[in-house]
Amino acid sequence: MAKPEKHVFICTQNRPLGHPRPACGQKNCGEVADEFFWHLQQRQLFDKVRVTTAGCLGPCGEGPSVLVYPEGVMYGGVRKEDVAVIFDEHLENDQPVDRLRVPAEFWG
Amino acid sequence: MAKPEKHVFICTQNRPLGHPRPACGQKNCGEVADEFFWHLQQRQLFDKVRVTTAGCLGPCGEGPSVLVYPEGVMYGGVRKEDVAVIFDEHLENDQPVDRLRVPAEFWG
Repeated sequence: MAKPEKHVFICTQNRPLGHPRPACGQKNCGEVADEFFWHLQQRQLFDKVRVTTAGCLGPCGEGPSVLVYPEGVMYGGVRKEDVAVIFDEHLENDQPVDRLRVPAEFWG
Repeated sequence: MAKPEKHVFICTQNRPLGHPRPACGQKNCGEVADEFFWHLQQRQLFDKVRVTTAGCLGPCGEGPSVLVYPEGVMYGGVRKEDVAVIFDEHLENDQPVDRLRVPAEFWG
């Protein structure tokens, strides 16, 4: 298993109903994670891209949160429909999708 | 919340008893994760270091697995007692702990 060129972490943190802090688990992060794994399989990028679910990544109010290393690009409000674009532009062509990045006060 | 200088991911993947693939969840990864959070608190490194639990990181037979980005250093067989050293040498002084790195065939 080679060290990947890009490693994607998708927040799948849940919190109880009524918890004062929002959670990506309440915002369809599960289908976002599924879509990342689906594209990884479809595009056969196992040698280049790794996809891992993660606990809380920090910017809870901006979720679903997706973080790409080694460059440390944090995306927020990621929907299932955004995943193909993240693959096309960022993971396969090294151009982060600026419109999906969280504001600098959350990660900058 | 600033982008951290170091981001530590600790695999906390579980698998059912009898599953053919080993899991960090069977190897005390929980106490390893707790120890990372404890040191983060004790050392007050919230601006510099982030600690996040994660799903499967890949080298399941070498776990508990701990991965540090942005440099992408993968540690294996991490015990609670190793965590202070990882903080002292790697997270606070940028010198990865070579004796804890997984072999290159798993991540290199």
